[in-house]
Amino acid sequence: METRIFRGEHRVDGVDPGDRGLAYGDGLFETMRVHRGGIPWLGAHLQRLQRGAQRLGIILPDDALLRAEIAAVCADRDVAVAKLIVTRGTGGRGYAPPPHSEPTWVLSLHEAPAAVQAVDVVWCDTTFADQPALAGIKHCNRLEQVLARREVVAAHADEGLVCDVAGNVISATSANLFVRDGDGWLTPKLDRSGVAGICRDWLLHHAQVRETVLNRAAVQRSSAIFLCNAVRGILPVRRLDAREWPASAEVRDLQRQLADAHPGLA
Amino acid sequence: METRIFRGEHRVDGVDPGDRGLAYGDGLFETMRVHRGGIPWLGAHLQRLQRGAQRLGIILPDDALLRAEIAAVCADRDVAVAKLIVTRGTGGRGYAPPPHSEPTWVLSLHEAPAAVQAVDVVWCDTTFADQPALAGIKHCNRLEQVLARREVVAAHADEGLVCDVAGNVISATSANLFVRDGDGWLTPKLDRSGVAGICRDWLLHHAQVRETVLNRAAVQRSSAIFLCNAVRGILPVRRLDAREWPASAEVRDLQRQLADAHPGLA
Repeated sequence: METRIFRGEHRVDGVDPGDRGLAYGDGLFETMRVHRGGIPWLGAHLQRLQRGAQRLGIILPDDALLRAEIAAVCADRDVAVAKLIVTRGTGGRGYAPPPHSEPTWVLSLHEAPAAVQAVDVVWCDTTFADQPALAGIKHCNRLEQVLARREVVAAHADEGLVCDVAGNVISATSANLFVRDGDGWLTPKLDRSGVAGICRDWLLHHAQVRETVLNRAAVQRSSAIFLCNAVRGILPVRRLDAREWPASAEVRDLQRQLADAHPGLA
Repeated sequence: METRIFRGEHRVDGVDPGDRGLAYGDGLFETMRVHRGGIPWLGAHLQRLQRGAQRLGIILPDDALLRAEIAAVCADRDVAVAKLIVTRGTGGRGYAPPPHSEPTWVLSLHEAPAAVQAVDVVWCDTTFADQPALAGIKHCNRLEQVLARREVVAAHADEGLVCDVAGNVISATSANLFVRDGDGWLTPKLDRSGVAGICRDWLLHHAQVRETVLNRAAVQRSSAIFLCNAVRGILPVRRLDAREWPASAEVRDLQRQLADAHPGLA
């Protein structure tokens, strides 16, 4: 699929083998749904990127150029996934960021995953570490997710739920978690680990949701569960370990509400 | 400086922009002292690489080829630093490792850092997260070290000591820590975070050292402290925050012992 690579404001042929993204995962990324030549949540993606860049002290590429290149890559696509990686750039040997560095950014297009009615989920043994300095942002240190995802593949499941070391549920490997509670929804707090997803953020603003600390038992006994992310929208959970859930009217309502606001996420 | 890039057994011109090292820090690295055309601790470096590869399920390049390329790169160098990065290779979008992947490996030569008599050290506010699944190995998820190192630079210090969330001291940003205790030495346990250094390992086998849990107060009141790594050998600590230490005969003895065994680390 199409890939464009840049150093600062200039398009380049390849990634420098001394790039800090490769050396240390010293970068950020966004994975975005493409719909009819555009990205429904582009503003939210770029805002999260900005938050991450501030946290890590990474300089972002020029905003207008970034938007123009994203628009150019998506222009002819009806349905696809666009991925943007921004690293701190090239930086010699050693952890200290160079005093002046131009970001490296890689923009790539991928096929959208097939739509599914619901997903089967397992509990992962891999935990997400407590690290408030990195929590919430979408940085490129993702070995925990890679290890957890290996468990999901081994279990022939669609996704896996991951807890922190204290046993509190954080999220799926690449999606946020919502569980039904009374008339509303609960979703785990992400101040110590996890990624604050764009679809999660939309739901926090458009549905009755409370952020909380959530243990495994509370998830397992909930009357409805779904996962969500900015590529696949809202994904009802059909099975979690031994328990199965019937299709939920409340989840369907949220899916409809999301589809009305963003037809690309229907 | 010289850089060689490989995919599996083949030398290639560049790093694939879809490499999982760049996307997720899904790789391992070794930073090695070059001395008179060879690497004093090559065997130990390759053993740690092997341990990391087993932990992460990464396939390593052919051992004979790897050794031959390392030897070729170092052949004419009297003093230098060789860095090896091995990633899981290219792997599309998504955390799941591809079922079959060839490792990407990048071998580069760098100037050795200038020798110093002793180092000035500060306490970092950045913490290392508890993550037993990643502790000890030298993987490429190093944002914590990057953040800690930014503090060291801001403080105009040579190095910084980093604690875990419980306040126990783990290591410096790119070196292990040893503190004097009675007739021997203490060094932090690294079963929950940190990198098990090659020089640290040598000291565990050749000096009177006990691995333990170490808090800040114990470090601050110790009669002698040093840092160590495989590039710079043993580095006496002269200052830590407000306290200064005179040159220590016990540290000098260890430096001599190391220099006798490995003249490259003198």
